[in-house]
Amino acid sequence: MTAPDTRNSLGRVKLLNLDHVAIAVENLDHAIEGYRNRYRVEPLYRERVDEQGVEEAMIPVGGSFVQLLEPLGDETAVGRFLSKHGEGIHHVAYTVSSIEAALEHLKTEGARLIDEVPRLGGRGAKIAFVHPGDLAGTLVELVELPDD
Amino acid sequence: MTAPDTRNSLGRVKLLNLDHVAIAVENLDHAIEGYRNRYRVEPLYRERVDEQGVEEAMIPVGGSFVQLLEPLGDETAVGRFLSKHGEGIHHVAYTVSSIEAALEHLKTEGARLIDEVPRLGGRGAKIAFVHPGDLAGTLVELVELPDD
Repeated sequence: MTAPDTRNSLGRVKLLNLDHVAIAVENLDHAIEGYRNRYRVEPLYRERVDEQGVEEAMIPVGGSFVQLLEPLGDETAVGRFLSKHGEGIHHVAYTVSSIEAALEHLKTEGARLIDEVPRLGGRGAKIAFVHPGDLAGTLVELVELPDD
Repeated sequence: MTAPDTRNSLGRVKLLNLDHVAIAVENLDHAIEGYRNRYRVEPLYRERVDEQGVEEAMIPVGGSFVQLLEPLGDETAVGRFLSKHGEGIHHVAYTVSSIEAALEHLKTEGARLIDEVPRLGGRGAKIAFVHPGDLAGTLVELVELPDD
């Protein structure tokens, strides 16, 4: 090839799906019961993710998830969020095909990153967070799901 | 029939899809440019919705949208949100097959509703909001999309 495959490169950067909306909650059992009773939806699974300091429940809704996050302690990121804001929407997560390509692109753009390199999230995914100060006050998580 | 069709009734109440995440922004053009540059996504359309006091841009991401909301004035709901919180995630919206059935069910559950009856949203949809004090600090919008 004589020129870089720009189209393909952009495809690896583009947001592909709204993977989940994450909601910080005080009590996971109580929140799960609320979603069940109000909205007739159920978690597909529940997982403790020590690296994130949370126990999480993933509720499938169409092609996305509602992710409920209960902190494992007050000094975790979600624990501090709850102390400051109370329960509420914590972040929004999008899948990308290559998280390394997405992070490289964001660095080129001068984006304010929380994670310069990917780390391990739930479901064996590679994840990275973009600081809410970067764009529209929104904490964004990028997710590259593992191959099945 | 000798008994109500409970299964069908629940199906009309259940959340079907994560329709959109709504983000309150100061300047719609600037936010659209940010999503384009950072994440290579583009609005499908832009619409002024006087009833909601916003101009909105809908950016498709997989089977959902990122909805960017710029208030039409300081005394709108989104204008007050911006004054108090700054830019950030404002609400999350889910589709249901019957918004009337969903609202009836929520009333039976004792849910704290903002809209007791549906009103008109963007895309000709029927919408209703559930108060963030009802469940997990989250402002929830229910959406019944019009038949094509």
